[in-house]
Amino acid sequence: MLAAVLDGEIALREDYPEPSPGRDEALIGVRVAGICSTDLEILRGYMNFTGVIGHEFVGEVIAGPREWTHKRVVAEINCPCGHCEFCRRRMRNHCPSRTVIGIDGRDGAMAERIAVPAANLHEVPEGVSDDEAVFVEPLAAALRILEQVDVAGASVLVLGDGRLGQLAARVLNGRARRVLLVGRHRGKLAAAEYRGIATRLVDNFVPAADVDVAVDATGAASGFDLAMRAVRPQGTIILKSTTAAESGMNLSPLVINEITVVGSRCGPFDAAIEELASGRVEVADLIGARFPLARCAEAFEAASSGENIKVLIDVQ
Amino acid sequence: MLAAVLDGEIALREDYPEPSPGRDEALIGVRVAGICSTDLEILRGYMNFTGVIGHEFVGEVIAGPREWTHKRVVAEINCPCGHCEFCRRRMRNHCPSRTVIGIDGRDGAMAERIAVPAANLHEVPEGVSDDEAVFVEPLAAALRILEQVDVAGASVLVLGDGRLGQLAARVLNGRARRVLLVGRHRGKLAAAEYRGIATRLVDNFVPAADVDVAVDATGAASGFDLAMRAVRPQGTIILKSTTAAESGMNLSPLVINEITVVGSRCGPFDAAIEELASGRVEVADLIGARFPLARCAEAFEAASSGENIKVLIDVQ
Repeated sequence: MLAAVLDGEIALREDYPEPSPGRDEALIGVRVAGICSTDLEILRGYMNFTGVIGHEFVGEVIAGPREWTHKRVVAEINCPCGHCEFCRRRMRNHCPSRTVIGIDGRDGAMAERIAVPAANLHEVPEGVSDDEAVFVEPLAAALRILEQVDVAGASVLVLGDGRLGQLAARVLNGRARRVLLVGRHRGKLAAAEYRGIATRLVDNFVPAADVDVAVDATGAASGFDLAMRAVRPQGTIILKSTTAAESGMNLSPLVINEITVVGSRCGPFDAAIEELASGRVEVADLIGARFPLARCAEAFEAASSGENIKVLIDVQ
Repeated sequence: MLAAVLDGEIALREDYPEPSPGRDEALIGVRVAGICSTDLEILRGYMNFTGVIGHEFVGEVIAGPREWTHKRVVAEINCPCGHCEFCRRRMRNHCPSRTVIGIDGRDGAMAERIAVPAANLHEVPEGVSDDEAVFVEPLAAALRILEQVDVAGASVLVLGDGRLGQLAARVLNGRARRVLLVGRHRGKLAAAEYRGIATRLVDNFVPAADVDVAVDATGAASGFDLAMRAVRPQGTIILKSTTAAESGMNLSPLVINEITVVGSRCGPFDAAIEELASGRVEVADLIGARFPLARCAEAFEAASSGENIKVLIDVQ
C-alpha cells in the first residue's frame, strides 16, 4: 500500500506491507490525516521513530469487531498493555509498555490503511466533517487543560499561535475570565481575533507576573521562560511544549514565586468530538494547505515552513 | 556595632551603623544566627544583595512594642508592604514590594542588633533552645511541603542530604507512607539514618519513575533532572532549589509523564516551633560547627566546604 514512511527522512513508499490487525484491533481505511508539530519533532529525531508517521486522522473501519464495521472513526493514540498497574488505575495513557500510533513502536496514519485497537476508537457523528475530525486529537489535548486546572474566574495567557495554541485559546475563551493569545505571526493571530479572542504580538507583550494561568504551547524553551515571567506568584503554568530547554535556563522563579508547572499531554476524545459537533469550537479556518498522500514530502515542507497553521493529507 | 557585611565579599565591620527601628518595628539583640545555602548563593551574587547578611536567627527584643519587650523571638523573613493586593489576599510572602531580611533590601541578622517588623515575630517557648530556634526558618520551609501536597499514603523521595533535605526528610518521615533520602555524603546520610530515615548514596540510586513525590533540595540542576526520572507519571516534584539549570536541560519528561512541579519557598513558623517544642523533629545533630561573629569569614569558609551540615554564628 501507499505510505509516508520515516527512516531518517520522509519517503513515499508504494509497496509498504499491509497492516495485519491483531485480536481486538480494527483495520481502518484512512481518509484524511494531519501533520502536527510533534511529527516535525519526530522528523528531527524525537523518539527515534521509524515507520509510518502520523497520529491525527479520520478513517472508516474496513474490518474488525462487528460493531465498528463501516463506521467513520478517530482513534486515541496511546495503545496500553491493558493489565499493568497504570492500566488498572485508569492511567492508560501512561502505561509504561504502551505503543503510540505513529510516534512510538507502532505504524501511524499517513498510509492507505492502519490497524488500531478497537478500544481506542471513537465514532465521528454526521455533523462533523472529515477535515474537522482530524482536529479531534489536538483538540482533546487542548481540553486536557480543563481537566488539570480550574480556569473559571482565571485570567489565562496562551503562548504560541500555532495549532495547539489556537485550539487552547478557543477552548479557554468563554470558560476563563480572560484569555490573551500571544504569538509571532500576525496572520495566525488574526485568525484567533476573528473568533473573538484577544491577541498580541510577542514583540509587544510585556510579562508582568499577573496572569493566573499561562499555557506554554510555543514549542520553544523561550516560551517557558516567558511563562515564568508572566504568571503571578502561586500561579500555574500548563506545559505543552516538549522541546528541549535552551542552555542556562534558570528555574529559580518557580521557587521564589511558588509557581506550579503542570505537564499536559493527551486529553478526552469524547469532549473534543462534542466541541466540534456542537460548533462551540471551529477549526476549518486553521487549515492552511492540503496535499494528496503521494505528495507527502511537499506536505511536510509546507508544514515546516511555519506559514501554514495546519497541513492536511488526503489519503482517499 | 559589630556586623558581617556583604559588599562583594563578606567582611567584619566594627563600626556598622546601629539599626533604627521604624514604627511597628522591634529592635532585637541577636543571640545566634545560622548560615544557610541561600547565604552561600547570595555570596556568589544571587539577588545582588549588599548589607548585613543572615536571615536565620534567634534573639531578644530590646525595644519596640511593649508586648514584645524582653521576649526571646524568631522572625519571618518576608517584610510585605501590608496594603497591596497580595497582602490583602494573605499572600504576604509574595508581596511584590516586600523586603527580605538579609536577602533583599533589608539588613540581616549577622550583627549585634537588627530591626524587624513586630508583625514578623514569633515567641520561642522555653523548651526550645537558642540553637534549635535558629532552625525555625528552614524547618518552616520544609513544613511548607505539607501545605502544598498531600503526602499521606505517598512514597516520597528527598534528593539532597544538606540542611533542607535533612529537615524535609525528618518532617515527612512518619507522615508519608515511605520516605527515602538520597544524597552524596555518607556522614550526612548516617545522621538521617540515626533518626530512622531510609537513605541511599546517589551513586547507588537508580531512578525508576515510581515515586509519588520527589523533593528536590539538592541546590543543583542535576537534582531536578534526577527528580524528573524518579517520579511516576502524574507524580509531583517539589522544587526547593533556586539554582540555575545546567545547559540543555530537557523538560519534555514533564509533558510526556504529565508531572506537576510545585515551587516551594517559605513556610509556617508556628508549625515549625511546635515541631521543635514537641520534640517531633530533632535538629541538634545537624550543627556541624560554630564561630563567634568576629570570625564570620571563617564561618562562611566552613559552611562552603560542604563538610558541615549547619554552621552557627554566636553573636552574644
